[in-house]
Amino acid sequence: MISTTVEKARIISLEGIEKLPVAETNHGLKLVAIGGGTGLSTLLAGLKQLVGASDGGEGIWLETLSAIVTVSDDGGSSGRLRDELQMLPPGDIRNCMVALSEDSTLLSRLFRYRFRGSGELGGHSFGNLFLAALTEVTGDFVEAVRLSSEVLASKGRIYPATINDVRLVAELEDGSEVHGETQISASRLPIRHLRLEPAQCLPLPEALTAIRAADVVTVGPGSLYTSILPNLLVTRVADAIGQTRAIKIFICNLMTQPGETDGYTARQHLETVKKYVPEIAFDYVILNNHPISDEQATLYAADGAFQIGMHDHMFEKAFSAETEVVRTDLLDEGEKVRHNPDKLARVVLACCEQARTTSRPTVTRS
Amino acid sequence: MISTTVEKARIISLEGIEKLPVAETNHGLKLVAIGGGTGLSTLLAGLKQLVGASDGGEGIWLETLSAIVTVSDDGGSSGRLRDELQMLPPGDIRNCMVALSEDSTLLSRLFRYRFRGSGELGGHSFGNLFLAALTEVTGDFVEAVRLSSEVLASKGRIYPATINDVRLVAELEDGSEVHGETQISASRLPIRHLRLEPAQCLPLPEALTAIRAADVVTVGPGSLYTSILPNLLVTRVADAIGQTRAIKIFICNLMTQPGETDGYTARQHLETVKKYVPEIAFDYVILNNHPISDEQATLYAADGAFQIGMHDHMFEKAFSAETEVVRTDLLDEGEKVRHNPDKLARVVLACCEQARTTSRPTVTRS
Repeated sequence: MISTTVEKARIISLEGIEKLPVAETNHGLKLVAIGGGTGLSTLLAGLKQLVGASDGGEGIWLETLSAIVTVSDDGGSSGRLRDELQMLPPGDIRNCMVALSEDSTLLSRLFRYRFRGSGELGGHSFGNLFLAALTEVTGDFVEAVRLSSEVLASKGRIYPATINDVRLVAELEDGSEVHGETQISASRLPIRHLRLEPAQCLPLPEALTAIRAADVVTVGPGSLYTSILPNLLVTRVADAIGQTRAIKIFICNLMTQPGETDGYTARQHLETVKKYVPEIAFDYVILNNHPISDEQATLYAADGAFQIGMHDHMFEKAFSAETEVVRTDLLDEGEKVRHNPDKLARVVLACCEQARTTSRPTVTRS
Repeated sequence: MISTTVEKARIISLEGIEKLPVAETNHGLKLVAIGGGTGLSTLLAGLKQLVGASDGGEGIWLETLSAIVTVSDDGGSSGRLRDELQMLPPGDIRNCMVALSEDSTLLSRLFRYRFRGSGELGGHSFGNLFLAALTEVTGDFVEAVRLSSEVLASKGRIYPATINDVRLVAELEDGSEVHGETQISASRLPIRHLRLEPAQCLPLPEALTAIRAADVVTVGPGSLYTSILPNLLVTRVADAIGQTRAIKIFICNLMTQPGETDGYTARQHLETVKKYVPEIAFDYVILNNHPISDEQATLYAADGAFQIGMHDHMFEKAFSAETEVVRTDLLDEGEKVRHNPDKLARVVLACCEQARTTSRPTVTRS
C-alpha cells in the first residue's frame, strides 16, 4: 500500500494536478487546514489554486478552503500590537490572508510590506496594521479578518483558533516554566509539557462547523509547539477533528527546529501530537523524501536544524494499518528549505483521491 | 450687481442644485480646488456630489475635479511619518481623499480611523500609514496618492502642491523667525512674512496642466498662512492661475485663526493673498453672512477666534468691478463652526453659472 502511494504521489508531483486519477463524477471537497507560520501559508498558497478549479467532470478539486490559524504569537509586530492595542496577534493570520489572495493585487502587495528602520513603525507589517485598524473600526477581530479577506479577494476563509487572549506556557526539561511563544522558541531546553493559558479557550463556532463539515482536515506543516499544538489544544477542536469522518492528513516539517524539536524524527513529531490529542487518528502522513543540498545542510546545521524523515526508514512500521505514509519530493527551489506549494497541494489531493477511490472507512462522500 | 448675486446664491442654497439657472446646452466644468486642511476637504465633499452629475441638458456640473493640496505640515501623524520615513506629509492629502471617496466604503472608514492611546501607533491616522506603506511599495508618493484614490473610488484627482521636501518659514512681527507649520501655528505674534524653504519648489507638471485646463479655480477655505499660501508660493503655481482664463474664486474662512489671522477682516485675507501673489485676480469672493450662535461665539472667543465678514460692510467697495463679492449663508449645523459642503459647492457653481450667462471676460467656455 505504501509503495503504491509513493508512486502515485511521485507521478502527481511530476505531471500536475490535471493528471489526477479520473473519477466518475465531478467532485468538490471541503478542506480545513490547521496550523500557523510559514508552513500553513505555503500550503494555502498551493491549495488556493485548486479552489473552484473543477474542469467540469474530471478529478477532484476544492469546493471550500478554510484555515484555522494559531493566535499565540507574542513577538515582533504582532507582539507589539498585542501589547499596544490588546488585540489578538494578527501575524500568522495576515500571512495566510496574503497566501490566499491574488498575489498581484495592490492590497496584497501592501499586506506583504514591512516598514523599514527602527522607528515607531519600523518592523511593523502593514497587513498587521490594517487588521489592527479594522479591528478597532469594526470592534471585532474576526469580522476584521473576514472583511480584509474579502478586500483581498481571498480564496478561502480564515479563522483564528480562538478569540481568547491565549498565551503558551511550556514546562522545560529542567522543570522550569517559560511563558509565551517568543521565550519558548528562544529556550534551547527540550519541552516537557505545553499548555495554554487560560486552559479553557473558546474556539469560533464557525471553525468547529467548518471542521465538522470537512471532507479533509490537514494539520501542519509548522512549528510543532508554537504553531500546530496551540490550535489543537483549544477546547473542543481536537474532539471535533476526531469525530469528523473527514480524511485526516498530517504534513510533517522538513527540518527540526532548534529549541522546539531538536533531534525529533518524523515519528516523534507524530507521537508528540498523539500524546496531546490522542483523539485524532491520521489517515495519511505526508513526508518529504528529497534530500536538501549540502550547502543547505551545512547552513542549517550551523543553526542546529537538521532534515527530517531521511533516516527513519522504519517509520511506516510504527503505525497502524489505518495510517498511510506518503513519501515524495516536496522541496521547493531556492536557498531556504521550504515546501513547494504546488507539490504539497497536489499530494494532499492525491491522498484524498486515493481515499475516495479505495474502500477506506474514512471516505465520507456519497 | 452685488445684490443680484446675493439673491441668486440664497435661492440656490435653499432650493438645491437642480434649481440652478437653466442653460441652453449641457455643460461640464473642469474645476481645480486649491488649499489644505479641513477647509479644502469640506469643499471637496460638497463638490464631489456634482461630478458627472449632468442630468442630460440642464444646468452645469463638474466634468473633472482636481485638488492641489498643501504638503508643508510637520505636526502630528504627518510630522512623525515625515521624520521617520522622510516622506511628504500625507495628512492634508489623506483628508481630501476621504472627502472625495464614497463615505460608506470600508477603506474610506479605515482611512478616517486614528489609532488610540499614546503608544507607538497612538495618534497615527491609518490613512497616513496606508499612504506611507504604498509610497514605500511603489517608491513614489504621487503614484501612491493616485493608486489610493483609485482604491477609494475617489471622485477626483489629488495632487500634492510640490514634491519637494518643503518647510514653511515665517518672520514674525518682532523680527524673529519660526520654522515649520506647527511652530508658526503655535506662535501668537503676527506674521510679517512667509516663505518656503527651499524657495524653489517644483510643482507637479500634472497639477500645472490641470490649472491651465481649468474652467474654474477655487482658493480656500483654509488656514491662510499654513494651507492657502504654501500652495500659491510654489514656483509657477500662481503664474499658471494668473494666466489661465478660468473663473477664479476665493472662498473666505468663517473665523479668524489665532496665531495666523488674528483680527483679520475678509478684506485683509484677500489683501494678504494679493500681497504674495499679485498675479491672481479673483472674479468672485465667497463670504458667509450668517451669524454663528452666541454659544459658538463665546466658545471660539475663549480661544481667540472671531467670526469673519459680519462687520466689514464696506468690503465690497474696496474691490474693483472685476471682483464680485457673494454673501450667503454657508454655515453648517453642529457645534463646530464649519462650512456646509453642499451650500459651498452650490454657491461655487452659481458663480460659474453667472459668469457663463453674463458677458464676463473670464468665461472661457465656447
